[in-house]
This record gives sequence, structure tokens and C-alpha cells, in this order.
Amino acid sequence: MIAPVATLPPVSDAAAAPRAQPPTAVGAGPPIAAPPAVRAFVRSAEAAGGEIHARSLDARKEEEITAFLNDADKHAPLEVCIFNIGANVNFPILETTERVFRKVWEMACYSGFLAGREAARLMTARGEGNIFFTGATASLRGSSGYAAFASAKFGLRAVAQAMARELGPKNIHVAHLIIDSGVDTEWVRQRRIEALGPNALDNPDLLMPPASVAASYWQLYQQPKSAWTFELEIRPFGEKW
Amino acid sequence: MIAPVATLPPVSDAAAAPRAQPPTAVGAGPPIAAPPAVRAFVRSAEAAGGEIHARSLDARKEEEITAFLNDADKHAPLEVCIFNIGANVNFPILETTERVFRKVWEMACYSGFLAGREAARLMTARGEGNIFFTGATASLRGSSGYAAFASAKFGLRAVAQAMARELGPKNIHVAHLIIDSGVDTEWVRQRRIEALGPNALDNPDLLMPPASVAASYWQLYQQPKSAWTFELEIRPFGEKW
Amino acid sequence: MIAPVATLPPVSDAAAAPRAQPPTAVGAGPPIAAPPAVRAFVRSAEAAGGEIHARSLDARKEEEITAFLNDADKHAPLEVCIFNIGANVNFPILETTERVFRKVWEMACYSGFLAGREAARLMTARGEGNIFFTGATASLRGSSGYAAFASAKFGLRAVAQAMARELGPKNIHVAHLIIDSGVDTEWVRQRRIEALGPNALDNPDLLMPPASVAASYWQLYQQPKSAWTFELEIRPFGEKW
Amino acid sequence: MIAPVATLPPVSDAAAAPRAQPPTAVGAGPPIAAPPAVRAFVRSAEAAGGEIHARSLDARKEEEITAFLNDADKHAPLEVCIFNIGANVNFPILETTERVFRKVWEMACYSGFLAGREAARLMTARGEGNIFFTGATASLRGSSGYAAFASAKFGLRAVAQAMARELGPKNIHVAHLIIDSGVDTEWVRQRRIEALGPNALDNPDLLMPPASVAASYWQLYQQPKSAWTFELEIRPFGEKW
Repeated sequence: MIAPVATLPPVSDAAAAPRAQPPTAVGAGPPIAAPPAVRAFVRSAEAAGGEIHARSLDARKEEEITAFLNDADKHAPLEVCIFNIGANVNFPILETTERVFRKVWEMACYSGFLAGREAARLMTARGEGNIFFTGATASLRGSSGYAAFASAKFGLRAVAQAMARELGPKNIHVAHLIIDSGVDTEWVRQRRIEALGPNALDNPDLLMPPASVAASYWQLYQQPKSAWTFELEIRPFGEKW
Repeated sequence: MIAPVATLPPVSDAAAAPRAQPPTAVGAGPPIAAPPAVRAFVRSAEAAGGEIHARSLDARKEEEITAFLNDADKHAPLEVCIFNIGANVNFPILETTERVFRKVWEMACYSGFLAGREAARLMTARGEGNIFFTGATASLRGSSGYAAFASAKFGLRAVAQAMARELGPKNIHVAHLIIDSGVDTEWVRQRRIEALGPNALDNPDLLMPPASVAASYWQLYQQPKSAWTFELEIRPFGEKW
Repeated sequence: MIAPVATLPPVSDAAAAPRAQPPTAVGAGPPIAAPPAVRAFVRSAEAAGGEIHARSLDARKEEEITAFLNDADKHAPLEVCIFNIGANVNFPILETTERVFRKVWEMACYSGFLAGREAARLMTARGEGNIFFTGATASLRGSSGYAAFASAKFGLRAVAQAMARELGPKNIHVAHLIIDSGVDTEWVRQRRIEALGPNALDNPDLLMPPASVAASYWQLYQQPKSAWTFELEIRPFGEKW
Repeated sequence: MIAPVATLPPVSDAAAAPRAQPPTAVGAGPPIAAPPAVRAFVRSAEAAGGEIHARSLDARKEEEITAFLNDADKHAPLEVCIFNIGANVNFPILETTERVFRKVWEMACYSGFLAGREAARLMTARGEGNIFFTGATASLRGSSGYAAFASAKFGLRAVAQAMARELGPKNIHVAHLIIDSGVDTEWVRQRRIEALGPNALDNPDLLMPPASVAASYWQLYQQPKSAWTFELEIRPFGEKW
């Protein structure tokens, strides 16, 4: 379990001016386990001269989240926290066990609440920061077979909204990125082929490259505080919606 | 903890014709603990010649929910299940403990999933039924201070949506009633006076009578299957929204 | 062009009590031209002992709308105004002429504004009334090919919302019924067969009977003012959404 | 009346890479009449070495819109079209004349349809382009007193949605920017002082600088086609929502 968290140096927030400084330190999970979008974000940070400090942890454990973020903050003031844990499962309602329902919520919602709250604790003390949560189509729509997953994603979105309304006036940018698409990972590719047959990947434009997810977080980070976005939805140009 | 559940006899579903038969049996929690809207529903059922069988239970325990609904169904085929458990709390994000976040979710979301799934199990076997969940303003909006409550209510709404999409074609009407208002109970009256002063209740039109909530469930129940509503929002005529 | 308008006698509004009196007078367009849902509503009114007074008019002409509603109101106090004009067309954006865009707006949005405003003028003078607008899937979603139709339906929904917020506290119930389905008329049946082939109507559960639309208006009309719905969405139980 | 339209040279669209080239030509209304956000956009273009060609026109006239965009396209291939005409008025429903309702729609919705459609005609021929519409709080909410304005803004949003769904797969990025705030112009400042008194502007963080609006258009323009946003909402960090 990985709590992807990026620590970046404070930068000035001149209206409408893109931030010039590269990130100089990013903490995230180990490269192998971290979601590809986080790894892409980390790679840009490294390319720009940043350092990476990673740690594996169980994001459902309050004390592990707290310790990780505090340690990261000691290394360099915590400027960005990106929460990007998924738990996409599909079961008919009668086959959705209470264990599945509970585990999916713990991974995709409860741990996001913990990470967001602990990041907010460090950031409010300092009067600035960025907390970005990652959503999906299921954040807005409870489709047939997705009671457990959509319930957790809806719940995470509510946490993000409540935090954005409370913390925005305190100069902390809370945003919710909705990725209305599959993300192009090996795991997603395999699932598509299994579900849709060998031609499932013929259209290369229907999976979102992790680097594009990272670019979206980067856009949110660059927004001047006079024009913050709470909810940013992204999808590939060929996606049906 | 009460799982309000109404058991009504099967009625015919002629398009656009209001159902004529009164409910003849309603199972619900003990009159004292049951939410007023449920008690109002029960009273109309009794007035119409129905019988009431109540039970106190912990709706967060899978086995208690299952046993209660199975017992009710043995008494008379389960025709309506109304889930109406609230857990409205308000805390700044930094003071929202993990315990509060988890307990609110267990009461307002997880137990709804359990009740809905078990009701669906009984109803799908019979090919008809009605499952109504109760929402609030916080089902659609994560306001400042409501991370825990809104997260649970968003999550419950997702469960209801996923179930409605899966079970509608199986002739089970799943609906989500959004009450955009305080409901007129002694507890709500006291809270308003504490929060807003002695004149808080001067406008009698701003609290919703429990009987009006019951009337809304009744409307949902009377809808012909050719024109089902999934989401029904209600508010007093004087409410600002 | 028909402005379907129902005139019903004032009835008391006891909380949660269904209205007992039948409508005694309903003004609407001529039976042949009026939308089937309106004709169904009219038939129930007649069956309950009501009288019908119909008139054909061009709802895009302010003076015709005003004259019609004033005349109806002289006959019996205007208690319900139902606006139900459609103008569903589908064109690729490059083939959507400015004439089509303008005409569709005039029929589906502008005339609704006129009817709603003039009904409100009569009703506010009296301190009560019901104004119901009819929406469609396109009220909430601008699908490919529906720029003109969705634009008009979105626009009508905004009119309804603004009126509901302004007039609710004045005891006028403004509602917006969203019909997420085709309505079962000869015209819709023909279009489906043309578009989808001879088996298009095999599933009788996918078209909504006009009587069910009328039943939904009736439910809105029966709501106590302590629990009004602004937006009521209805769809057949088998509809995919 | 001004149809703000930006013409930029084609740039490559490598995933996640910000576009490096400055705009070299921007067509827009005369500096005095053009909305401040457009003027800010134009100034950045000029600062980056771009040329400006402006024209005053009546955006409600199909032939003027068509001529303008065709002329701009001859100068340099039309790469971005930004529609940013407002018509914010507030009237109680009974005082909303049919003339106001119609004029507001013509300015804020109908002219946007014309500009969008004509830009799409030029862009689809070339297989790429960007069409950005500007929304407001009233695009999503019909508040009391805003029947005319909200109706037009809802309608424009529907046009944008339908175009985005149809044109996205053709490599044309259609987006809808929702500005949930006043924009900091002399006119808005005067209105606030009139409405709220001499201290209305004490909090400088509640009006959005035009440069921040321009920055948001710029972010949309820089998005890789693998991660396009349709709807981007922005508000100042201190705004209540």
C-alpha cells in the first residue's frame, strides 16, 4: 500500500505566472509499487533535479500515514500531497460481501481521509499547501456492479469537497482530479484484453498515459490562488462520454 | 440502532393507478427509538388496519440485519424496505478523529448497504419489491465541517444508484429520497435553539413534518413501474436552496 | 402550437394528506393536438367530473399566452399550469442552421418562459398555485447531435429553477419533471421503427405511457407544501441509464 | 459586440509536454471593448511576439461571425476560438420582459452557438483546433432573479457539451470554463460598491484578475489530447461555494 506524496519547495504564487522552480524533493512509494502516474510525476521531479525518498506503508493505518508525512515534512516542507489509491472491483450486489465493501472503502476512501487530514495538519501550520485527490468515473456515477467501488469514490469526493471549502480560505488548494478513462498500465491492458478480446487495444487513444495524469496534477499545482479549480475532469479525446 | 423496514402485501401495479390497498403489516424498530418519519409511516399503516412488529437491532451487524429481514419476510413477503439511519455530525477536518469518520460511515453507509443487499436478496427471489434509501443535503454537497457525514451520505447514494441500475430491470424499485431540510423532531428543535437562539423556530415552515417524509415514501411506493423515480428531493416551500 | 394548462379549484394543503377533490375544470389545447400526457390528464379530470375548455394557440406569441391564461383564470382560478412542448431534433453541429437553433429555442424554452411568467402573475396575486415544466434526458445532457434541442431544454430548466427559488416562498410550487425515456405515442413509435428496425418495439416496457406522465404531474400536485419536489425524474423500470 | 477569437499557430501535441511556442497572431475585438480577460490574453500574445488583429462586430449576426472567422483563418490557421460574451442581468420573474429574455439569449447563447459552429467548420476541415466557451455560476444554477441570464448560460453549456462530444473524436478540443466569481473589472467594482457599500472591495481576494482567466484558457490549450478537460471551474481561494 502506497501513499503517494510529493514534497516540493515553496514557490511564489504570482497570479497567472507558471511556477518556474522545479521540485527538489519528492517522497513517494517504491518505484515498483507506486501507481504509474505517481512514478511519472517522480521522474519529472528527478529530471528537474529533485530527489526521491520513498517508503512502503499501509495507508489504512493512521499511525503509518502520520509518521510518513511527518518524516517527509522534516526533510522539506510538505507542499503537495497527492492521494492516488484505487480499488476498482465489480460484483453484482448479491455477491458483494461485507468484507469487499469494507476493504474497498478502507483503501479508496478512509485512507484518503487520513492522508488528507494529516497533510492539512502540516500545511495549515504553515499557511499554504496543495492536497490533490484522484477520482474516477465512479466518483460521479454508481454503475451497475459498482456499489462497493462507487460508494468509496463518492465518499472520497465528499471528503475532498468538505476539505476544499474549509481549507481554501486558509490558502490550501484542495482539488479532485476525475480521470474518466482507463490509465495505460500493464494491469489495465491485460484486463481489457481479457474482457474485450485481442483487439481491445487497437485504438491507442483510449487509454490515458500516466504522464498525462501527472501533467494534470502539475496544472493544478501551477494555478494561481486567484483561480483555483476544485474538480478537474480529464479524458482522452476519443473517449465516449 | 433501528433498521426501519416496512412489509406490505403485494399490490397490483396498474399504470398510473394509485394503490388502493392499505399496508397490512409493517416491521420497524420500537416506537420510541424509530425515526419519527418511520413512526408516522407505521401509524398510517396501523390506521389502515396494518399490524406492526418491531425489533431493536444493531444495523451494522450483518447477521442481525439478515435475521431481521428474513424473519419479517416469513411473516409477510417483504415488499418495502426503507433505510433511514442518520449520523449527522460536524467537526473541523483536523478534529475529525478516525473513530468518528469510521463510526459515521458504519451507521449511515455500511449498514445501508447491508440492509439494501439483504432486502434485494429476498425481493429478487420473488421478482418484485421496493428499496428506499434516505438522503440529505449532504448526499450532494460536502460542506465545510461535514467531511465525515457527507462522505457517508455520498457513499450511500452510490450504493443506491448502483442497486437501482442493476435491480430496476428486475422489477425492484430502488429510490433515494433527498430531504433538503431539517426534520421536525424534538432533537432537531433543541439543536436549532442552541445554535440559532430562542427565535430559531419562529418560522414553522422550515422544518419538515415527519408525516411529509412518510408521504414521500408513499408516493414513491405508488409509482407505476413505467415511471419510476430514482432520486426524489423534497424541501419545505420556504427553504432557501 | 398548444400551451397545455390545467385549471383546478383551490384545495386545502394539509400536510401529507392526498388531495381529495377532483379537478373540476381543465383548460388545454384541442384533444387532437394536445400531447398525449396532457390528454390523459384531461381525461382523468373529465372522469372526475371536470369540464374541459380547449384552445389552439401559438405559444411563442406573448399576447396569445397572456390572453389564454387570463381567459382560463376568469373561468376558474388558475391552479395548475403544465408546460409540455417539445422540439426534439438531431443534427450534426455543422448542419444545425441558425433557423433550426432559433426555432427550437422559441418552442421549447422561450414559450415556456412566457407561460410560466404569465401563470406566475395570476398565481402570485392569489398567493398559491402550481407551475410544472416538462424536461427530458436532454435537460441534463448535451449529447452529440443535440446542440439545438439540449440548449433549449437546459435553458428551460434554468427558468424553472429560478422561478422555483423565487416563487416557492410565495407558496407557488414550481417543478421540473424529467422524462428519461421516449413517451409512447404513435409518432415516437414510427420514429423508433425507422431508426431501429421492425423489432424496435418488442420490449413494451421501454416507452412511457402518457398516463404515467400524467400520474407524475398528479403526484407533484398532491405534495404538501412542507415537502415539495423541484425536480422529479421518471423512467420506465427497464430503461438503461 | 465582440467575438473574442484567438488565432495561434499549430503546435505539436506531445503528451504531457507544455507547449513551448508563443502565440504569433491573435485576433480579437478592439482593446477598449474586448473583455479584460481577452485583453490580458492578447497582451501575453503580444509580449511573446504575437501580432493582434482586431475587429468590432455584432456576434448575433451569422454573416458577421462567419466573415470574421474566415478572415482570421486566412491570416493564419484558426487554432483557438474563445467565446466570452456575458449578459448578466437580474430581474424578478414578473419584471423579466420578453425583450430582455430574448436579448440576453441572443448575446450569451445564440452568438456562442454561431461562433462555435463556424470555428468548428474551419477546424474540422483541418483536423484540429480548440473552442473554449466561458461560463459562470449561472451556468449550473438558476438563482432567484436570474431566469434570463441562467437560461442563456445553461443553454450555452449544452451547446458546448454537444460540440465536445461530437468534435472531441475529431481532434477538436471543446471546453467550458466556469468562472465562479466576479472578474475584477472597473464595471464589476462599481456594481459591488453600489450593491454592498464602500467596503465591498476590502477583500482583494474575492475578484478574479482577468490575467487568471487568461491563464486558465492557456492551461486548457496546453492539455495533451490524451487528457482533455471539458469543464474547468475556477474560483478565488477565498470564495464561498
